[in-house]
Amino acid sequence: MQTSFSLSTQDQNVNIYECEVHLKFRIIEDKVAMDERDQSALIESLIDAYTYGDDEYLESLESQININEISSLDASPSMRRQLIRLQNLRKLA
Amino acid sequence: MQTSFSLSTQDQNVNIYECEVHLKFRIIEDKVAMDERDQSALIESLIDAYTYGDDEYLESLESQININEISSLDASPSMRRQLIRLQNLRKLA
Repeated sequence: MQTSFSLSTQDQNVNIYECEVHLKFRIIEDKVAMDERDQSALIESLIDAYTYGDDEYLESLESQININEISSLDASPSMRRQLIRLQNLRKLA
Repeated sequence: MQTSFSLSTQDQNVNIYECEVHLKFRIIEDKVAMDERDQSALIESLIDAYTYGDDEYLESLESQININEISSLDASPSMRRQLIRLQNLRKLA
């Protein structure tokens, strides 16, 4: 019996990766902006500032990334479904 | 003798902050895109994907931020100059 698609991520062009990003930088910022915002809004605005690049307001010190391919079985059902969809589209292409 | 401006960051509205951001997430990505790009381009594209938000392609797992106000004396000369400029503009305003 043949299965119509495999859940193995090996030898596939599209995979699920687990990424850890660590950024360290210095930024000139308004005290009010740093104190009063909630954490997720603050992370978002600081990441936006970081991706804008270094200038007189921002100085990046470290950036590290760690990437591991993971099995689709370890991902959420919606991500697994999306992966299967993409892999099948590629087979049809 | 009075100095015309102080280098102390205390009680100023604009300060220099040292930020550490740690992000962990899962992403569906093309194997070629993950393997072949140089590290800084890869970090940039993954951060862009992260800031776009969660969907069927990306699932955020952790986000942490650590912020410390630092003395302008510990920053680079260009950043210190910019801080002094901003603080003086505020005094004039």
